[in-house]
Amino acid sequence: MCRWLAYSGRPIFLDTLVSKPCHSLIHQSQSATECLAATNGDGFGLGWYGAWDEPGLFRDAMPAWNDDNLKSLTHQISSPLFFAHVRASTGTPTTRVNCHPFASGRWMFMHNGQVGGWDRIRRRLEARLSDARYHERHGSTDSEVLFLLLDADDLDADPIGAMRSVLAETRRAMIEAGVDEPLRLTAALSDGQHLHAFRYSSDDRPPSLYWRQGDDGITVVSEPIDAAHDQWTAVAPNTVLTVEPGGRVRLDDFEVEIERWVGARVALA
Amino acid sequence: MCRWLAYSGRPIFLDTLVSKPCHSLIHQSQSATECLAATNGDGFGLGWYGAWDEPGLFRDAMPAWNDDNLKSLTHQISSPLFFAHVRASTGTPTTRVNCHPFASGRWMFMHNGQVGGWDRIRRRLEARLSDARYHERHGSTDSEVLFLLLDADDLDADPIGAMRSVLAETRRAMIEAGVDEPLRLTAALSDGQHLHAFRYSSDDRPPSLYWRQGDDGITVVSEPIDAAHDQWTAVAPNTVLTVEPGGRVRLDDFEVEIERWVGARVALA
Amino acid sequence: MCRWLAYSGRPIFLDTLVSKPCHSLIHQSQSATECLAATNGDGFGLGWYGAWDEPGLFRDAMPAWNDDNLKSLTHQISSPLFFAHVRASTGTPTTRVNCHPFASGRWMFMHNGQVGGWDRIRRRLEARLSDARYHERHGSTDSEVLFLLLDADDLDADPIGAMRSVLAETRRAMIEAGVDEPLRLTAALSDGQHLHAFRYSSDDRPPSLYWRQGDDGITVVSEPIDAAHDQWTAVAPNTVLTVEPGGRVRLDDFEVEIERWVGARVALA
Amino acid sequence: MCRWLAYSGRPIFLDTLVSKPCHSLIHQSQSATECLAATNGDGFGLGWYGAWDEPGLFRDAMPAWNDDNLKSLTHQISSPLFFAHVRASTGTPTTRVNCHPFASGRWMFMHNGQVGGWDRIRRRLEARLSDARYHERHGSTDSEVLFLLLDADDLDADPIGAMRSVLAETRRAMIEAGVDEPLRLTAALSDGQHLHAFRYSSDDRPPSLYWRQGDDGITVVSEPIDAAHDQWTAVAPNTVLTVEPGGRVRLDDFEVEIERWVGARVALA
Repeated sequence: MCRWLAYSGRPIFLDTLVSKPCHSLIHQSQSATECLAATNGDGFGLGWYGAWDEPGLFRDAMPAWNDDNLKSLTHQISSPLFFAHVRASTGTPTTRVNCHPFASGRWMFMHNGQVGGWDRIRRRLEARLSDARYHERHGSTDSEVLFLLLDADDLDADPIGAMRSVLAETRRAMIEAGVDEPLRLTAALSDGQHLHAFRYSSDDRPPSLYWRQGDDGITVVSEPIDAAHDQWTAVAPNTVLTVEPGGRVRLDDFEVEIERWVGARVALA
Repeated sequence: MCRWLAYSGRPIFLDTLVSKPCHSLIHQSQSATECLAATNGDGFGLGWYGAWDEPGLFRDAMPAWNDDNLKSLTHQISSPLFFAHVRASTGTPTTRVNCHPFASGRWMFMHNGQVGGWDRIRRRLEARLSDARYHERHGSTDSEVLFLLLDADDLDADPIGAMRSVLAETRRAMIEAGVDEPLRLTAALSDGQHLHAFRYSSDDRPPSLYWRQGDDGITVVSEPIDAAHDQWTAVAPNTVLTVEPGGRVRLDDFEVEIERWVGARVALA
Repeated sequence: MCRWLAYSGRPIFLDTLVSKPCHSLIHQSQSATECLAATNGDGFGLGWYGAWDEPGLFRDAMPAWNDDNLKSLTHQISSPLFFAHVRASTGTPTTRVNCHPFASGRWMFMHNGQVGGWDRIRRRLEARLSDARYHERHGSTDSEVLFLLLDADDLDADPIGAMRSVLAETRRAMIEAGVDEPLRLTAALSDGQHLHAFRYSSDDRPPSLYWRQGDDGITVVSEPIDAAHDQWTAVAPNTVLTVEPGGRVRLDDFEVEIERWVGARVALA
Repeated sequence: MCRWLAYSGRPIFLDTLVSKPCHSLIHQSQSATECLAATNGDGFGLGWYGAWDEPGLFRDAMPAWNDDNLKSLTHQISSPLFFAHVRASTGTPTTRVNCHPFASGRWMFMHNGQVGGWDRIRRRLEARLSDARYHERHGSTDSEVLFLLLDADDLDADPIGAMRSVLAETRRAMIEAGVDEPLRLTAALSDGQHLHAFRYSSDDRPPSLYWRQGDDGITVVSEPIDAAHDQWTAVAPNTVLTVEPGGRVRLDDFEVEIERWVGARVALA
């Protein structure tokens, strides 16, 4: 389990959210409270949209809490749309290529959660990657595969639908492999214009996710970054929150319809 | 505050103590219980005596808990006398040169604790280093300075006395700089034959320190590494435990007599 | 292109070969002479057989030339059979999981060279991995895939044959993908008893490989580690050198018979 | 010996100079041509002025040539005044705190060269640091000491004079310690408004330094970063080049008058 935050709004310096609040993401790297792992010290990452369509990325395998580069960069860089992530490995190596966010072209993605039975479905899902995305596979996390499965064409046409397809594919792989453990995740996805934040679980225990409308913009977080808990609203389970370019927030049901697909396949057989 | 362990006895593989017990040092790197900082993720180190008079050193600035090198090395290396340390920085950078143990010639040292008002006395203590030891100053921790102040000649003649002198010098510097905070420490020191483990505080709250006589040898730890708490004995405050080459354990008072020295100086004035 | 050395014989300290000679492997990390890349600064690794059937591994993504851990470990560790490797990346990330040697059970492997058209055949070869080995894929190098393709059962029965099969499979994948570039490699493989060193190219330009019979044992190197050039013998192209447990050296032709296989397939069609 | 570049002018993206030219600084990290060490792989650093008076800093102990963070940051960050540096250690550890640039308040500094007999004068020069600057000593390089010796008040009043004083102090320490080796350096110093680039040697062999007036601004480099060698002008030995806020370039003699000072001291005695 990891911790993350995403922001969309007027440009602000990244440290406004990443390090200055009392329970900032950097604080959560040592003392997270709403997840099993209090320590999220297996690397960190920043991604931000700035001068180009493609986001900037800064990732390192060190803990976030004492990193001078992270302090300086979040103090210097301002952005209207950025991601920050602290990682708690669930088994894969502590290395930059396993750190979030992931980016390809103008799309950026980060993830927290658990893909049940990952070892039993990894090769099936990797086999589904397009040739182009296969070349971008550098690490060994489930998160990177989920991102690379998001086909570029699908993302451009319908990012929420693309995410639903990838999770449906993942759930199918789990079912066919006889995996009993759930798929639980939160994730953030952006093209530099829209911010999509997903909270989903195949059982009734999705990881926590909150959002807040502030003066400058919208912040979405794994857990509140300050003590003003009444200002933070939990995103409902199986919901996707979208911040549109003008700042409008939409909350949509996000169901992954695996049963219907199975039915269709049976009907066809 | 950091966590450490030291062993002297029949040669054993380092993972016997460093990673295998349920509350091993690696476990303590994420979940220490008897100190303020539960997380000791700002680097780690091993030091061991093997084929040569000089100990081997392996130190890294990464957390200990997911480090494959640490796993493999502690599994492969056996030694009759070794140190292991996980670090929680109190402000100095997370970098290898600030990681413990420190070694010079055949002497090896590691440390946990707090030198009150360090910023106000650092330059005075560094000015006391011999020319030879001054060249070995690579980092910026108080721990490295304490070690480098231990003069090689004094160490060879009387290691406990050398340690007492260094702490007296440190206390004098604190007093003269008007420092109110205490000096609290545990430390381990070895020449490859004897193991000395110090527990000292200028007030009544020294950091915790325990020891156990096992079948193979003596283990000294910041906190017990397993659930057999009745087998671990607390080292009394202001005491030095010495394991002699044959395995005999001595416990001696370890007082740092700063008043008498001040008196002498006054008398001379 | 990388540089490596392998040793089999009486136990010696690793620095005897890794750092002490005038053109030692550490020296080659900055100033290799017989390959395109003079600098091999994208990480390094050690693997050695010691107390257990499984080798110890120490790998880091830093350059070898200034690494204090490497200096201390090669000075302290002695072994009758060990590998050392300095890496020059040909595009994949500089990260520990891409560093050599690779190990699985008691087998250890390292590699230098070029698999032509790797991007076009990677997914085909990864698809050939057994389920067990697929889980061990952590990085993104061609080298790790070559190692993981070496099936454990085949290795135990006939390691040279297993290597021949993997290279034949690789060559077939290259041919079917229309790759014109050659497959050129040197590689070392060991089970802790035998040392196999391969020099192979699909064209007439295999990477350099030399060996020397010394007083203590056999050393195999990418390029001579000292100025006594007349003591080093080039391994002939398409040859495998084997050092048997007692120290006997065998040199066998190592041809990868891809044509015959293609012919057989045509005949069957 | 290291390699560096500094820029002052209209804001440009850092990769314009740091990575895009054919012999860019990143290229020089592997293949420098005008210095003894072709490889400058012992870490790197960026410093740039942006939204605040204090510069941003990004430093890492890895080689520059394959660092994805460096690629992304230089592509995203634009600045009217920035420094970049690749390091070749002359003995001190490869660690972030020994990487350039160094910054304190709004001042930033980087350095290349050789302080003869450093080990014999280090403690004398460190003893000259103000208390405030002493606390900022984190590493063990001569470069960091030169920077910390630049007193903040002196810098604000007369930066060139402050640099002259520090080098005079250094030369005096060398002479009094009986050091025969020369003091040779290039260095860059800025307050975010002015850029000062020094080329100095106590003998007749100062390290190389070049500058170019381009359409956007002034670039100063250890060695030309492209093949248009006729566009680059060597800075004369014992000269300081200053770029003023409006872009005007001044070239002033930069002599370090140690003899006269010694004479004056004698006269006063």
